[in-house]
Amino acid sequence: MTSAVFDHPWLSGLFNDPEMAALLSPERQMAHMLAFEAAWSRACGAAGLFDSDKANEAATVIASAEIDFADIAAGMAQDGVPVPRLVKQLKTLAPPEAVHSGATSQDVVDTALALTLREASTLIDTRLAALDTALAELEARFGEAPLMGRTRMQAATEITVRDRVLAWRLPLSGHRERLVALRPQVERVQIGGASGDRKALGDKADAVVAAMAQELGLASTEKAWHAMREGVVGYASFLSLVTGTLGKIGGDVALMAQQGIGDIALSGGGGSSAMPHKQNPVAAELLVTLARYNATQVSAMHHAMLHEQERSGVAWTLEWMVLPQMLMTTGRALAVAQDIAGKVTRLGAATDS
Amino acid sequence: MTSAVFDHPWLSGLFNDPEMAALLSPERQMAHMLAFEAAWSRACGAAGLFDSDKANEAATVIASAEIDFADIAAGMAQDGVPVPRLVKQLKTLAPPEAVHSGATSQDVVDTALALTLREASTLIDTRLAALDTALAELEARFGEAPLMGRTRMQAATEITVRDRVLAWRLPLSGHRERLVALRPQVERVQIGGASGDRKALGDKADAVVAAMAQELGLASTEKAWHAMREGVVGYASFLSLVTGTLGKIGGDVALMAQQGIGDIALSGGGGSSAMPHKQNPVAAELLVTLARYNATQVSAMHHAMLHEQERSGVAWTLEWMVLPQMLMTTGRALAVAQDIAGKVTRLGAATDS
Amino acid sequence: MTSAVFDHPWLSGLFNDPEMAALLSPERQMAHMLAFEAAWSRACGAAGLFDSDKANEAATVIASAEIDFADIAAGMAQDGVPVPRLVKQLKTLAPPEAVHSGATSQDVVDTALALTLREASTLIDTRLAALDTALAELEARFGEAPLMGRTRMQAATEITVRDRVLAWRLPLSGHRERLVALRPQVERVQIGGASGDRKALGDKADAVVAAMAQELGLASTEKAWHAMREGVVGYASFLSLVTGTLGKIGGDVALMAQQGIGDIALSGGGGSSAMPHKQNPVAAELLVTLARYNATQVSAMHHAMLHEQERSGVAWTLEWMVLPQMLMTTGRALAVAQDIAGKVTRLGAATDS
Amino acid sequence: MTSAVFDHPWLSGLFNDPEMAALLSPERQMAHMLAFEAAWSRACGAAGLFDSDKANEAATVIASAEIDFADIAAGMAQDGVPVPRLVKQLKTLAPPEAVHSGATSQDVVDTALALTLREASTLIDTRLAALDTALAELEARFGEAPLMGRTRMQAATEITVRDRVLAWRLPLSGHRERLVALRPQVERVQIGGASGDRKALGDKADAVVAAMAQELGLASTEKAWHAMREGVVGYASFLSLVTGTLGKIGGDVALMAQQGIGDIALSGGGGSSAMPHKQNPVAAELLVTLARYNATQVSAMHHAMLHEQERSGVAWTLEWMVLPQMLMTTGRALAVAQDIAGKVTRLGAATDS
Repeated sequence: MTSAVFDHPWLSGLFNDPEMAALLSPERQMAHMLAFEAAWSRACGAAGLFDSDKANEAATVIASAEIDFADIAAGMAQDGVPVPRLVKQLKTLAPPEAVHSGATSQDVVDTALALTLREASTLIDTRLAALDTALAELEARFGEAPLMGRTRMQAATEITVRDRVLAWRLPLSGHRERLVALRPQVERVQIGGASGDRKALGDKADAVVAAMAQELGLASTEKAWHAMREGVVGYASFLSLVTGTLGKIGGDVALMAQQGIGDIALSGGGGSSAMPHKQNPVAAELLVTLARYNATQVSAMHHAMLHEQERSGVAWTLEWMVLPQMLMTTGRALAVAQDIAGKVTRLGAATDS
Repeated sequence: MTSAVFDHPWLSGLFNDPEMAALLSPERQMAHMLAFEAAWSRACGAAGLFDSDKANEAATVIASAEIDFADIAAGMAQDGVPVPRLVKQLKTLAPPEAVHSGATSQDVVDTALALTLREASTLIDTRLAALDTALAELEARFGEAPLMGRTRMQAATEITVRDRVLAWRLPLSGHRERLVALRPQVERVQIGGASGDRKALGDKADAVVAAMAQELGLASTEKAWHAMREGVVGYASFLSLVTGTLGKIGGDVALMAQQGIGDIALSGGGGSSAMPHKQNPVAAELLVTLARYNATQVSAMHHAMLHEQERSGVAWTLEWMVLPQMLMTTGRALAVAQDIAGKVTRLGAATDS
Repeated sequence: MTSAVFDHPWLSGLFNDPEMAALLSPERQMAHMLAFEAAWSRACGAAGLFDSDKANEAATVIASAEIDFADIAAGMAQDGVPVPRLVKQLKTLAPPEAVHSGATSQDVVDTALALTLREASTLIDTRLAALDTALAELEARFGEAPLMGRTRMQAATEITVRDRVLAWRLPLSGHRERLVALRPQVERVQIGGASGDRKALGDKADAVVAAMAQELGLASTEKAWHAMREGVVGYASFLSLVTGTLGKIGGDVALMAQQGIGDIALSGGGGSSAMPHKQNPVAAELLVTLARYNATQVSAMHHAMLHEQERSGVAWTLEWMVLPQMLMTTGRALAVAQDIAGKVTRLGAATDS
Repeated sequence: MTSAVFDHPWLSGLFNDPEMAALLSPERQMAHMLAFEAAWSRACGAAGLFDSDKANEAATVIASAEIDFADIAAGMAQDGVPVPRLVKQLKTLAPPEAVHSGATSQDVVDTALALTLREASTLIDTRLAALDTALAELEARFGEAPLMGRTRMQAATEITVRDRVLAWRLPLSGHRERLVALRPQVERVQIGGASGDRKALGDKADAVVAAMAQELGLASTEKAWHAMREGVVGYASFLSLVTGTLGKIGGDVALMAQQGIGDIALSGGGGSSAMPHKQNPVAAELLVTLARYNATQVSAMHHAMLHEQERSGVAWTLEWMVLPQMLMTTGRALAVAQDIAGKVTRLGAATDS
């Protein structure tokens, strides 16, 4: 078992997001890698680089191949990438001359990442929209209620609940627009071959790239982005912007829930082993934690911009350590924010009646 | 004198970027703050919130006011912001009832920031374009030359210089497109008043905001963005993407310049106090340093997303510590990259002749 | 299955460290929490706070309790901590009046962390010593060999292999000394109760703390360190210093292994799916990746210094997300460095003979 | 003028620490570099490496040399370090054959840093002690007062003011102990020469190193630490631990000062341009800002562990950008905390009487 919070047997109760976890699962990653290899065989067959019949046979076999994960793990320490062993396995199942030839490890792994990000983006967008709706409902229910405006943590002038909720809501539609602009920057095929120059494809390179893009539902690319990571890193920055917005909501909720302030009432709330009566704003605090986590991780992604030459083992491997966790964090934060919104029973000062 | 590298009496020789420094200078910041206050008087005069004649008089006086910086400094420790003292000074020069009323400190400082970012963005865009041109020239001169492709720092297959230079160049046009999309997210007026709800402006709020936007050449806003920082933080992320791309170039150049590799020749190059014959790739190394600097600072900006309630002294002040330095870093990196491009006398393997 | 690299079905082949993973496993964490609860019952029994017989019975039962992890997970989302549900389970097994009373969740979790860090520190120290030995062997075998010294990535003056290897080795003994100094700062009982003031223990507080320290083999504490995290954060800083040293080694090895430089020969080395002949310095690159990972994570730990009031859900939860991964990273980096040291077949320039 | 907050004409009113600034000033840095060069001439003269009379003459001249900073700045962009030009200037003033020979740039700059850190450590230690005293006084005055303990931002059980103040105070003495242990790790001479192997000093190396250490009041070293940065990075980690502790105090004070909580009263407090009656906890917020700043910068320092080979321009230059700002931040935070402590007029709940 694991020490990572998202998958931990009990910490996962706080951190896990089953939907996002499913998109990031090794099984789904493998399915995406096999989708690449199957499409590759087909595209190279169509382009005349592979024997057409064998290519189709390979594509069919690869699509439903059962992969021995332990064997791949055994190769990781030596190769640093899963693809050499994966290809070796595939070549025992399918005509070897119609498998992978002309592609390189990073083509497979990065294209699989593009497929993952496509699914993750859809999930994130759906949740941003749902949260916007939930906050709009809070605004509709409580928007007119008076609230003491607070600046620099001090009472300032009276505002309405709407004023504060709008500062939670308005960024969400902006984030959805950001996502629309970002998706084409990451949902694109990675095809380069050995040194990233597509030389092994000769004059068929454009045809293969176009066919791959078509089959996988990704954008085409003029050149491999092995060592140009601004798309992926920009995406990671976006994830942290989203959790930053949600962290601001969580921070506000925790401040509003203080005894002596009392500007919010929530159903549920966490218990304490020492003080069973307490209602801890666990979900609100978690939003702040997740925001600070991503605000830190985003730095690692920016450091990972510095790929050496045609391909960097150092920087690319760093992405693997960080980006999936940022996605998990973002997914969980969106789910938690939605949960909080659904539990608000009052916003604005409590009234006696 | 200062310990900060950009302004240090001798370290500035390595780090300073006079053009960007001019845009970020206190004098220019003050000019932007006065532009806000002058426009504010005029806009409130036009809207009938201030006496029209006095408003015009105030606007004229403010626009050319000489400000006592030391007095403002004296107020900073108590107020945490420069505006209370600035307004106090202005009220001794202009009709006090036609000065600042209805605005708040953050309106002034953030709108001034928007004006700064407008100018900085123009400089950055100009330099991105110039660097793209310079790299295109290198590509034209040396693009066909053979180069050993290197992946995971090991010789892979032979590529051409064009293949490597394209990985330096292609992100630049993408960055220019990013900037086009980002500018409207930061070049916007900040107007909120006391608790950010524009209440002091009553039914004249829309007119005042529109007039301010018009006069200052910024976008209008539906609501104050005092506590919604995704625009500014997204901009900071962009800066780090730019320096990340340039850091990759610098890293490659330093690797190419190694004796034993020798894939580049540069005119100039740094000396050593112990070994005068050495030609250190100082500029290339600096690009990597600047990239890692911004990759770290961007984290602070993401942490600064977490503004409390209507306005956070904590998070806002953190932006002040970080964002100007990120701009200086980006400006300097672009200038250094341009300088390197101009000094390349050979790309690709040296040939005997 | 998981998206985290250390536990991933195939990425773990590159990242996992089974020994460190065992120390950080949920089962071991639970064993430590149960050790706390058993010791607590016994200590409170001895102090007369619990009925002596029931306390001993509880301690015995708790020590071998089988815990339902799923039940704890179910409580996490509400409570934010595992302890309320854990205590509930224990009270069904043992005399409830002799279980946990007077302690709080953070006492249990942080004391369990102290026990984890004790074991992790022993492992780290053992590996630091072994790596020092391995590098000393390399020094003995190759120390006299000439090597071109390189400064700022340029050939400088000839040195010996010993000069470079000493820069790898010397920090290791310093790290061991750091660890000796740090261990007492983290290997200490956490005991505070509800608001951290030990009030529930009355005049028995000192006796209970002393007994707990004695039984668990940890240092005693004058006050709960619920909100004083400098010990834990200082420990995290140490971990990143260690991986920083190892990352420097890895970076050097990767640079030395370049064709054209050739200052090292290693047996083994990673394969490529496109170029089977290549020998990628995967392990060396991984050391750099792990160093940059920890260099980023350490920032999150420093942010987690800012605990609010008597106990912060926000900051404490952030530690959970980061510290175990830093330990895994450090463990793996030490193992990889040792592995590299064992595979060196030449250091210094290749000679023809 | 500058955009950096510490030296900015008005932001400095909030951020500047004149005492720390004096220690980090370019003039003081230059004095330390000249102290190195003077001691070097003397030590090499005593060892017979330089002509004895000329060495003494050089040492005397160097100690009082007036340096042209602009000339050094002009060399920085090419050399990346100030020393080549500095040495050139010195050789026009003193017998050139008795100047600098056998040393390298990093020897000079890093030894100067060691001298800076010695002075900074004394200042930090003095302030830690003073703050401890000030908090002890608060404890003496208000310690018995009741205070609602708050965990996870919720009212828990009643504690005393002493309980909370101890969580502010106790880490301070620990930090002083840390500093005692850290000082020898940074207050040491840096002597290596060209490739860091002291080869130019021949069999006089030990004598020269010992004499330098003696004259400069620093520890001797067995080997140059050009590329072993754990001392400096450990020191930076310490700085962030200190500001983390102070940030926790600031965060608590800001929370206690909220209307509705009211657990603290402070004299002074910041004004607002829109709401003159407000008393903003500017100093408390600043402590949090400074803590988060250092918590981010510390990451850059850990990245700077990765020096390549014998000397890294990349990583070393990154230190220059970050470490002085961390020192300024720490100095300022200590001064601000002291200031807050002196302004507390009540701790604990307000009482009617």
